[in-house]
This record gives sequence, structure tokens and C-alpha cells, in this order.
Amino acid sequence: MPLMPSWVASANSAETPFPLNNLPYGVFSVGDEEPRCGVAIGDMILDLASAQSAGLMAMEVEDVFEQPYWNDVMDLGPAFWAKLRARLTEALAEGSSDQAWLAAHLAPLSEVTLHMPFAVSEYTDFYAGRHHATNVGTMFRGADNALPPNWLHIPIGYNGRASSVVVSGTEIIRPNGQLKAPDADAPRFGPCRRLDIELELGAIVGGSTALGQPISVAEADAMIFGYVLLNDWSARDIQAWEYQPLGPFQAKAFATSISPWIVTAAALEPFRCDTPPREVPLLDYLQEPGPMLYDIDLSVTMQPDGAPTASTICRTNYREMYYSTAQQLAHHASSGCAMNVGDLLGSGTISGPDKDSRGSLLELSWGGKEPLTLDTGETRTFIEDGDTLVLHGAAKGDGYQIGFGTCEGRIAPAVAFPKA
Amino acid sequence: MPLMPSWVASANSAETPFPLNNLPYGVFSVGDEEPRCGVAIGDMILDLASAQSAGLMAMEVEDVFEQPYWNDVMDLGPAFWAKLRARLTEALAEGSSDQAWLAAHLAPLSEVTLHMPFAVSEYTDFYAGRHHATNVGTMFRGADNALPPNWLHIPIGYNGRASSVVVSGTEIIRPNGQLKAPDADAPRFGPCRRLDIELELGAIVGGSTALGQPISVAEADAMIFGYVLLNDWSARDIQAWEYQPLGPFQAKAFATSISPWIVTAAALEPFRCDTPPREVPLLDYLQEPGPMLYDIDLSVTMQPDGAPTASTICRTNYREMYYSTAQQLAHHASSGCAMNVGDLLGSGTISGPDKDSRGSLLELSWGGKEPLTLDTGETRTFIEDGDTLVLHGAAKGDGYQIGFGTCEGRIAPAVAFPKA
Repeated sequence: MPLMPSWVASANSAETPFPLNNLPYGVFSVGDEEPRCGVAIGDMILDLASAQSAGLMAMEVEDVFEQPYWNDVMDLGPAFWAKLRARLTEALAEGSSDQAWLAAHLAPLSEVTLHMPFAVSEYTDFYAGRHHATNVGTMFRGADNALPPNWLHIPIGYNGRASSVVVSGTEIIRPNGQLKAPDADAPRFGPCRRLDIELELGAIVGGSTALGQPISVAEADAMIFGYVLLNDWSARDIQAWEYQPLGPFQAKAFATSISPWIVTAAALEPFRCDTPPREVPLLDYLQEPGPMLYDIDLSVTMQPDGAPTASTICRTNYREMYYSTAQQLAHHASSGCAMNVGDLLGSGTISGPDKDSRGSLLELSWGGKEPLTLDTGETRTFIEDGDTLVLHGAAKGDGYQIGFGTCEGRIAPAVAFPKA
Repeated sequence: MPLMPSWVASANSAETPFPLNNLPYGVFSVGDEEPRCGVAIGDMILDLASAQSAGLMAMEVEDVFEQPYWNDVMDLGPAFWAKLRARLTEALAEGSSDQAWLAAHLAPLSEVTLHMPFAVSEYTDFYAGRHHATNVGTMFRGADNALPPNWLHIPIGYNGRASSVVVSGTEIIRPNGQLKAPDADAPRFGPCRRLDIELELGAIVGGSTALGQPISVAEADAMIFGYVLLNDWSARDIQAWEYQPLGPFQAKAFATSISPWIVTAAALEPFRCDTPPREVPLLDYLQEPGPMLYDIDLSVTMQPDGAPTASTICRTNYREMYYSTAQQLAHHASSGCAMNVGDLLGSGTISGPDKDSRGSLLELSWGGKEPLTLDTGETRTFIEDGDTLVLHGAAKGDGYQIGFGTCEGRIAPAVAFPKA
């Protein structure tokens, strides 16, 4: 599929993340106005609340775009999702008869504030990248026990904390927690010293399942509304001490950042690709009926406070994952767990096979033993106060790209606690 | 404190779970009417929605009791909680001038349907009972590694799945999942064969904290609105295969049952007691400023399909816990994790030191090796289809009790999956 031309001129460039082919969904506000739904096109945003008031779509439910989240649209189901995308594609296409009236509902992206694009119902994070699991397993449990025995059979996941999910740009406060040095008799309480990122894709569940009713991988695939970039900020020292036997808890609960645009599964359709060859056969309930990963280029930049430029510290691709989102969601519901509109599924850290394709500082600095050198000459093992970390992502088409925007966070110092 | 007499005669018995001293909060409906808030008194329920319409309390927010959850009341904060309790105590007390008009707003409990008493925001389950952790650890990791090194320092917890929390009486469908026999080369997928209970108390968070802002144990204690009985149904065979390295996931995601009455922290105030002596000192942020457990008798009964009677399989007490809810909540927020109204915190399985005080079948049957004999002569290791499990709980006062009602679930067979 080539670039689809739009009457919004800035959308017709090979460099824009938001051509007509993309149409990512966000929530925005201008000045003191209430946040509402919009769609990005080039360097503009279409105000869907006002456009709908002016007659964009015939709908029974009139006010879904006036909400500060996309959940109500998701609730309307896949047939409506397709109808909305078709209508927006028609209305914003070059030569559209809607241009005359619709232009008044556009605002420059540079003049709006972006908010969380949806209300997170529950948040689950997976561990589905084989390179990442092998690297981390080697560091935490030794090379002989790197990949747990269940890993090639189960898309391993754990429940995260929805209340900690924040939109790109939100300041990240360095967490406090229990830290125990290997040679110490007892833990102490204080600021995390091994603060890390995890480069992930977040999938947004757009449908619901009833408690007790599992779903197939195909049904799961059809329930995904769209994707965001996701940075599962991690406190490696807190994690190392707390995670046995019940998994990470406070090490992952202080913040998870997402990019502000929901890139729809529909926009990513031309970029579907297969999961890697299976080393051992999967059980029937995890078999994929077709290609369910996507070819999405990803990268991470790091910029210390005051540094003139950001340094790229990782380049990888979503197709490196061993399990797809559809497999993860099918597994999630396999015991009968009810899934809901707005559930967020983190892919797991997306590391590639090479040293510079690793999606966490834990891996990039090999547990802190091999510091990275940034473009400015500064070195880093883990994140320091004032550092800004940014995730970037785009699926690359023929003369266009499906961009995700950025997922950005700057680290603020830990708070003083316990209180004096 | 003695029994407080009420003009509702059935509330004045030493046997009723719901004397005037208790006043537990629930959500009920009669026939096809909408669910709304009520309070139990003896064998009756006071319809707070209609009583408020008739002028029970002067309030700015008029419709909090017309909701199918207590979250809006929680949102009003501790000063309002105290005001509400004081008003109800006054209005239902023997000799109250309100009796004449309020009696019309009572309905027999036997004629109402009880619903989930609150909307669960997020659900966290802890592992804070020392006897339970020691027993399970011995079975899963051997006696030498029974108690993990962090256990005496951290109230270990993991995030559960709020969407799986159901009210007492909801049928529990036996989950499917990946099962792997120790001598098998690969897992298979099928119905759980080691279905279990976990006898817990659930604490309901009635306040909120901002992301990045930890709280003290005293602040945490003041944020707890009330308690319910909680059965964290567990699939032990699914758990054994999936739980390393990131903790339990599908083994705990199919159902968690709670009792329908929120017993307020205020009602439990006379039953406060200390946590057990610390084997090692706790870090400052976990130090308790006073007694923060409660003396609550607990028991579990099991009744096979068609059996004439239920057999008591466990008797224990909440004071057996090593960590209090306040400590758990303070730890939960210690990294800066935002806590919200409606968050549910499972205490962890409440096992006592004796064989018949263990709060799970895993412990009672010692991993299935020592079957229980029920009163009917039937034996059980884990739960069979058609079995009904009921949790009971009450704090015993001087001539009265603060009862929790029951938390009940009957097991239905697994669904056929994957579909043919």
C-alpha cells in the first residue's frame, strides 16, 4: 500500500508519523477546555467532538468523542471501529467534499496538550521476548537456568498496576524501596540505584469476555483495538530483593509510561508478520491462525540533563517477540479470567539478538558491568536524575510510515521517606 | 463494650451476626428493582436509598446510597464515615425517636438479593501469614528454603485480577490451564485437578494516594474503610507450572469470592490486637504505631453435592497474621504506587499453627498426601465438582458478635476448551 494523499498537506510527507494511512487516536485539550477525542493527521489534530457535533457521522451514541478517553468508542465494537476509520479516511482524503467544513475543526498539534488516550482498566505485563528473557535470566539465575522451563510453552505474564500508568511527558519520580546488597545482613530503605527502562509495545483490549469463558487466539486478535509505545520503568535493585517467590511488585509499580496515540490494529494491518519458528510445538489453544506480530521499528534515546543532544542507545523491532499479543490475550483468558475494554497488555521487553538491540539498560550495560558511552562522552549504567528517556516507533511503508509519536519521561529525584 | 440494644428485636441476640454494634454495609435488591446501598441490622436490612430520601441525613451529596456500590460513600472520607455510623447507631438504637418512620424502610434479609458491595478498583493479594508461608514453602521449595529470605522484611504481595472478584454465592467454574506432571516432557492443557481455597480477609481501601507519594503505616490504617471475608480460589497444579519467575497468574485469575457485607473498621475497633513478636526488626517505614490486627475467629466448611451437612475443615483467627493490612498498604505505596478508593487487599492465607487451623486444602491435605475425612465419611484432598466451600468469620464480643456473614462458592465443571 502506498501513501494515501490527504488535503492536509503536512500528512503527505514520507517523514510525518501521521499520514492518512495512520489516523491514530488521542485525547487532547486546548488551553482550559475539557479533554476530548481527536485524531492526528500530519501536524494537525482533528477535533472529533466538534466535528461530530457538526455532523461527521450518523450515530445513535452522540457523545462518545466528548469523553476524555477512547473507551466508549471501543465499547461500540469492531464494526463501529471500521466504520469510523472508513469515514475519517474518506473525509480527510485529497479531493474530499468534506474539506470545506472539516478544516475548521483542525488544530495544530503544536498548540494542544495530549492526555492519557484511554482509561486503563487493568494492566498486565508479559515477558515474551526471547532475547530479553535469556539475557535477564542469565544475569539473575545463571546461564544454565536462563530460560525458565515453562518459557517456551507459556507466554509468561504478571498483573501490573493500572494506577501507575501515565502518559508520555509525565515526570517520573525515582522510587524508594527495600534494597539489599548481596553481602548485607539486612535490607535498608532508600532511593532505587538501578533505575531502568523496558522498551515495550502496549496493546489495548477493545472488547470484553465473561468470567469463565476462554477465547481463541483468533478471537483475541479481533479484540485488540490498537497499540501504544510502553516504557515499563523498573527498579532493578528493588526487584532483585522482592521478586521471589511471587514476582515483581513495587519494582514495577511506581510508573509505566505510554505514548499518547493509539495506533489502531487496522493501520498496522499491512505490517503483519509471523512469530519466529517454534522451538517446541505450542499447545492447541496458543496456535496462531495467521501472522500476528507486526514489523515495527523501535528505538530508545537517552539525554542527560543539559546535554545538547539525545543519544540512541537501542534499535530493535517488534517482530523479535516470541509470542504475539493475540497469544498473550488468549492465554490471559484461558483460565476464565474476564477481560475488559481498556485492559492494557505490555508485550514484554523487545530486545533483538545484538548488543545494541537490547531494550533495557540492565541488558545494555550487562547488569551495570559494561557502562554505555553516550554521544556527549558521558557514561551510564542505569538512569540518573535529570535523564530523559524517549521511546520511538514506526512501521515503515512504501513512501510513508505509521508512526507512534514518542513515549518520553524525565527522572526527578526520590522523595524523602519515611517522613521525619 | 457490651451489646448495644436496638428497636429491631432480632439484633439483640448474642447469636446474630448483625447487632447494632456491627452495622455492616451491603448492596441489595428486591425483585427487579435496581441494586442500592443498605445496612444489616439483625435479620433485616435498612434501605439507605429510601431512608435518605425520607431525610435520614442532611447531606450535600444526595444520591450516594442509590448507587450499586459503596465507593461514593468511601469517596466522602473518614469524617463522613464516622458521621454516617453515628447517625445509624442513633437511629436504630432502642428508644430512638426515628423508629416510627424508619421501620418502613426495613426489609427482611431473607427477601433480598445481595450483590458486590463495592466496585473493585484493583486487587492485590498478600502472603503475610507465617504458618501458611512456611507450610507452602516447605512443599514447593523444601524445608530449607521454606521462608524466602525477604519474607521477614517485606509483606510480600502480588497484583491480582480485579475482574475476577465475585460476590458470595457466585458459581465458580473449574479453570482450565497448562498442567505439567513432574515426569512429563511437556505440559498438557485441561481442567485443574488441584483446585483449592485460600481463607483470607479482604481489606477495602477507602482513600486515595497520589502517584509518587508514599504514606506511613498510621496513614494507611486510617484509609481502610472495612473488611470482607475473601476466598482466593487457587489452581495449585496450574500455579506450580506457571509461577516461576514472575508469580501466580492464571492460577489465581479465574475467581476470588468475597462476602457481601463490608464490616467497617469502626465496628472492629474493640477487637484490635498486636501483630506477633518480630523475629527481626522491621524497617522504619513498616513500624506500627499501635495494635493493627484484629481478633476475628474464622472457619471454613466443605459440603459435597448431596451431602446432608457441611463439615468444618479449618478453624483459625486473623490475629495469626505476621503483617497487618496497614503495613501492607504502606508497603504497597512505598515506591510511589498510587492507591485508589475501591482497591482490595487480600490478607494472605490465614493459617494457624495447628494442623486443623490451616487455611488451604494444600496445607490441610499436605499437598494431597493426607486426605481429609469429612463428617459424611467422604474424603478429599482438593475440591471436586459440586463441592460447596463456605468461609465464616466473626469477632466475639461480650454478649454479641461482629459477624461477616458467609463467603460461599460451589464448583461447576470446567468448560470444554479449546473449542472443537
